[in-house]
Amino acid sequence: MRLVIALGGNALLKRGEPMTADAQRANVRIAARALAPLALHHEIVITHGNGPQVGLLALQGAAYQEVEAYPLDVLGAQTEGMIGYLIEQELGNLLPPDKPFATILTQIEVDRDDPAFRDPTKPIGPLYEKHEAERLAADKGWSVAPDGDKFRRVVPSPRPKRVFEIRPIRWLLEQGCLVICAGGGGIPTMYDKDGKLRGVEAVIDKDRASGLLARVLDADSFIMLTDADAVYSDWGVPHQRQIRRASPQAMREMSFAAGSMGPKVEAACEFAEVTRNSSGIGSLVDVEAILTGRAGTTVTAEAEGIDLA
Amino acid sequence: MRLVIALGGNALLKRGEPMTADAQRANVRIAARALAPLALHHEIVITHGNGPQVGLLALQGAAYQEVEAYPLDVLGAQTEGMIGYLIEQELGNLLPPDKPFATILTQIEVDRDDPAFRDPTKPIGPLYEKHEAERLAADKGWSVAPDGDKFRRVVPSPRPKRVFEIRPIRWLLEQGCLVICAGGGGIPTMYDKDGKLRGVEAVIDKDRASGLLARVLDADSFIMLTDADAVYSDWGVPHQRQIRRASPQAMREMSFAAGSMGPKVEAACEFAEVTRNSSGIGSLVDVEAILTGRAGTTVTAEAEGIDLA
Repeated sequence: MRLVIALGGNALLKRGEPMTADAQRANVRIAARALAPLALHHEIVITHGNGPQVGLLALQGAAYQEVEAYPLDVLGAQTEGMIGYLIEQELGNLLPPDKPFATILTQIEVDRDDPAFRDPTKPIGPLYEKHEAERLAADKGWSVAPDGDKFRRVVPSPRPKRVFEIRPIRWLLEQGCLVICAGGGGIPTMYDKDGKLRGVEAVIDKDRASGLLARVLDADSFIMLTDADAVYSDWGVPHQRQIRRASPQAMREMSFAAGSMGPKVEAACEFAEVTRNSSGIGSLVDVEAILTGRAGTTVTAEAEGIDLA
Repeated sequence: MRLVIALGGNALLKRGEPMTADAQRANVRIAARALAPLALHHEIVITHGNGPQVGLLALQGAAYQEVEAYPLDVLGAQTEGMIGYLIEQELGNLLPPDKPFATILTQIEVDRDDPAFRDPTKPIGPLYEKHEAERLAADKGWSVAPDGDKFRRVVPSPRPKRVFEIRPIRWLLEQGCLVICAGGGGIPTMYDKDGKLRGVEAVIDKDRASGLLARVLDADSFIMLTDADAVYSDWGVPHQRQIRRASPQAMREMSFAAGSMGPKVEAACEFAEVTRNSSGIGSLVDVEAILTGRAGTTVTAEAEGIDLA
């Protein structure tokens, strides 16, 4: 089977942990242990988030004032190299020495007319006091928005349209290569008025990008690994119930948190509708059980309505 | 023809330029213009340096004290992502839209018994006053060495033994993909006593790594692009003469600067000896002429002795 597996942020860094290389490597090692058994038997594409890592690079860049901080596309490219390296090395240490690996830098096209560009909503980087946020907005042309009693920079989160490196990714899978790509949702790019591709100050949702990749690769399964062991109906209230299995249509009739479970559910539904294959959402430790529908939430066009646990 | 082309540091950043993303992109754009015509007709692998970029990441990491700075292998991986992105995007803008590209994260194995580990010589990062260099050496276990009247950190520069991602690189070339890889000489790695691959605090010479890649890929030509328009005999003295064409044997009888032309000449000789194909050294602007022996220095086993200009 061909599987696309999206690693959530906590596969790289647990909440509250220091963002050292060692801490990230230790988390990647745990993820690698969960994923290695699947890589023995299946074609695997691994994607991953990069929020905290881009945040740290931005802070480091701001702290060293001699050189102007790099834009988001360049920071995203740096994190694809770094996180890809950790995943490739740790997984490589658990698989037979002849297993080929490739971490592929991934550029993704977004649409200049995407409504997200008129309404930046994705918070990135540190919290600022109001006056500092206003100064940064004026100096750098940032959009800022309240976050609790502080402020954060917000950037557009446009939909991914095209994965530029899709052919290399497919060729490598066909050769039996484990491929790591589309880190951080891929580097958002757009054609300018001269027809040249350029990086964009935006962040593509990782699950949306991974879902596009899974659809275009015609994956047999698309699995998103996250903090939660499944998608829940009525999340956070006493009668919350785990969704075991559901049709895309039934999932679309419910509502989920915009910043977290919402994009995952949307990506799962789109994948299930387009490919007629199933998509799973759940915990890293359950990845093998999610694949066979024994854990997590399965979204499949074959389901009728919703099964709750 | 299959060509391996190593871009020198000045293809990314001219001496004295600020290290902004814009300056680097502008230089990469110039390099892309020189390389694009070749990519229309040949299988191309592009490698590149990363010295100033790793240096900046290290300075930024040191300036932001809340998180311990990343080790060299992780910084190297970051620069492979960043520089690969700039090269891939700028070259992509000059080539037909259906030309496939892949930037491949590259890990290279080095030998734990390499004599370089007993004698670190490669200077990296900023200049320090003596007392500060001594403090850093004590705190971080660095080796430091004099550089003029200041001090710098020095790390081992072991020989590359194996390119782990060689099969994906070859597969992609066979599909017509332009491949960008082995940035900064590749990420130096080594098996630990438990047989696990780990990053190493070292820097592999970019030209040596590129030469290994060119040999293993059985490239038809291996070209190193640098500041100088050719290799010179008696460089820096009034009777300096440009070496137009030479056998590896004749080149080995001469001596060249250890930190700059020496490793290039060594890599060119090794390539010419092992593959019986020719290697060229010269300026970016001359790349097409270097390939046909009309500019730069050609090292080939077919030459008899040395032809000087």
